[in-house]
Amino acid sequence: MDILDVVSELKTKNDSKIVMLIADGIGGLPIEPGGPTELEAAKTPNLDRLAKLGVLGSMIPIKPGITPGSGPGHLGLFGLDPLKYVIGRGVLEATGIGFQVGPDDVAIRCNFVTLNADGTIKDRRAGRIPTAESAPLAVKLRQIKIPGVEIFVEPVQEHRFAVVFRAAGLGARVNDTDPQKTGVKPLDPVGEDPASQRTADIARQFVAQAEKLLAAEPKANGLTMRGFSKKPALPTYQETYGLKAAAIAVYPMYKGLASLVGMEIVGQPKTLEDEVALLARVWNDYDFFFVHFKYTDSRGEDGNFGEKVKMIEQLDAIVPRIEALRPTVLVVTGDHSTPAAMASHSWHPVPVLLSARTVRPDACQTFGETEALRGGLGQFEAVYLMPLLLAHAGRLAKFGA
Amino acid sequence: MDILDVVSELKTKNDSKIVMLIADGIGGLPIEPGGPTELEAAKTPNLDRLAKLGVLGSMIPIKPGITPGSGPGHLGLFGLDPLKYVIGRGVLEATGIGFQVGPDDVAIRCNFVTLNADGTIKDRRAGRIPTAESAPLAVKLRQIKIPGVEIFVEPVQEHRFAVVFRAAGLGARVNDTDPQKTGVKPLDPVGEDPASQRTADIARQFVAQAEKLLAAEPKANGLTMRGFSKKPALPTYQETYGLKAAAIAVYPMYKGLASLVGMEIVGQPKTLEDEVALLARVWNDYDFFFVHFKYTDSRGEDGNFGEKVKMIEQLDAIVPRIEALRPTVLVVTGDHSTPAAMASHSWHPVPVLLSARTVRPDACQTFGETEALRGGLGQFEAVYLMPLLLAHAGRLAKFGA
Repeated sequence: MDILDVVSELKTKNDSKIVMLIADGIGGLPIEPGGPTELEAAKTPNLDRLAKLGVLGSMIPIKPGITPGSGPGHLGLFGLDPLKYVIGRGVLEATGIGFQVGPDDVAIRCNFVTLNADGTIKDRRAGRIPTAESAPLAVKLRQIKIPGVEIFVEPVQEHRFAVVFRAAGLGARVNDTDPQKTGVKPLDPVGEDPASQRTADIARQFVAQAEKLLAAEPKANGLTMRGFSKKPALPTYQETYGLKAAAIAVYPMYKGLASLVGMEIVGQPKTLEDEVALLARVWNDYDFFFVHFKYTDSRGEDGNFGEKVKMIEQLDAIVPRIEALRPTVLVVTGDHSTPAAMASHSWHPVPVLLSARTVRPDACQTFGETEALRGGLGQFEAVYLMPLLLAHAGRLAKFGA
Repeated sequence: MDILDVVSELKTKNDSKIVMLIADGIGGLPIEPGGPTELEAAKTPNLDRLAKLGVLGSMIPIKPGITPGSGPGHLGLFGLDPLKYVIGRGVLEATGIGFQVGPDDVAIRCNFVTLNADGTIKDRRAGRIPTAESAPLAVKLRQIKIPGVEIFVEPVQEHRFAVVFRAAGLGARVNDTDPQKTGVKPLDPVGEDPASQRTADIARQFVAQAEKLLAAEPKANGLTMRGFSKKPALPTYQETYGLKAAAIAVYPMYKGLASLVGMEIVGQPKTLEDEVALLARVWNDYDFFFVHFKYTDSRGEDGNFGEKVKMIEQLDAIVPRIEALRPTVLVVTGDHSTPAAMASHSWHPVPVLLSARTVRPDACQTFGETEALRGGLGQFEAVYLMPLLLAHAGRLAKFGA
């Protein structure tokens, strides 16, 4: 019996409202010895006030030392063990551009490549062709017709694009055709079972037709396919937690991840302001609200400490508007750390601030990584966040008599 | 290999004495923002003195967010993973009233119900019939005779009573007969395998005879049966830890739980005073002593902060008498938290005080939840308490060379 089974068995319903406010990549590092992290440098009077009354902790996204991508990072937040539940690369790529992967779909990450005259690969990324040049080529591939299958081709960025084959009974156990080196031909797609052999056949036909359409291209005259995958059968918020959940996010990736666990995507917010307005608007329609703020991560990825600080301050400023809705439980955290000092995601624990009437207060006075080390939640793995939120919302019955 | 296998393999013997003093439900919450918990409000000079010299920690009873019942809470304290080892409801009910469930027994929780003339259920709890009325009816059911099986009927409380069928080879995979709603008849007991079909047959005969005996009763003229279960095969203290263990408890439930893991129940204490006197009396006969103090939980369940504080102070007052016996290891903790503010068990971590010559001291000065957050034991799951106690008692050899 794992924790998800237990939670699912103990779940009860009530009128509580839970808000999970995710500042993507919020955790950080000092840029100079002895200095503050981004969160510690930011002026966050609202979060600090909540920290004083609430309880802090440090959340390990997956396991110590493991840096999560966005997919596994969010699975953990949503209570699903990222080492057990895996979202295929193809599905993640399609999800990331807002494509709703259906049950009959096989999604594939594709690269434009440059082929030599003999069919061997000259450049695995087509000279990192600019998006302005590659996107029309992806659109051109929509001309490809294969009987019995619906085909979607979606531009992504530079040499990357996504392909989805839609037909009942397609398998996804197909090898990557990218040989991971130049000077050799792309590999032939081969299926490991009859259903996947059908997919491999379609892929072969797709490549053949694509190469004809691209023959005259100087850079992008071929393609490779990777990460053949189907929509994973993930436990949903409804069935696992008994929660009617709403996802409020600007970026397609996070909407897609939320929809994979059964959240409803509400609205089309463009800014944090929009997101909070939307939250208020749909407040009575849901039990749980996933609110995603992207820019803490973006500025961290840029390596821009000062701008990440500003993004955190923007987030702090809207907290009172969330409080005004009187959530039963409000948690503020991230899916991982993105220290500006590293200009990338990292494995460092993510600070967590949990606010609810039932918290046992700790000595923490402000919201920050160092302060969180003496927080009442201690250090815990992300998969335990949802059980904690449900407990504080009064939505988990006692285990055993 | 799980922790229990490791501990079992590494166990060694010596003359050490371990005392596990359990203040049931000791963990608490403030009743006003910024206020102390019950333990922090209590005057506990003896526990504070031990906290200064010893090491503190915060124990997660099962997993973060999960509130344990008494059964799972104690299994964790005894080192058994409560998600792996499950005590059936019937066995727990019988155990709770002091019935020693044997290897040939199937134990069942029963409800008196009110039946309509057509046999459908009018009230699933017989109008919450008072114990004074229901207990004689349970005793009356002892008249029931079924060939080849010994039958025990024990009053519990209000509409609840326990039934035990004793015969070699009975199975317990029988459905609950409580349909969980009114207006329908109780379900027929059905066994999932031949051994359980035998039990179901006995149950059917029991119900038929009972309904005849109860026919004239205005409220309790029928019954439902739930939680058919056999005594679980739990690892014992003797075989797992090499410990001869004594259980000193006032309430039958805790004696029963202790006996399921192979502890010997000593004496018939009525008060904490009795328990400590008993501890001194049997000191030379055992290696390990489980001493259970109930009233911290009871007053927490009552929602009475002030009285729970007094119970903690009573506990503190007897600590020197335990110290006078010079235990090698003394741990003071609980099986879960029971905050008066919630008037129920909760999921919050339980403060732990461990006193032994081999502790690495921490900075903690008093015994309390907030202080425990900077304790040397950190936060840990209950199943690791026993390994820690054995280690401090010098009873665990090195793992590997």
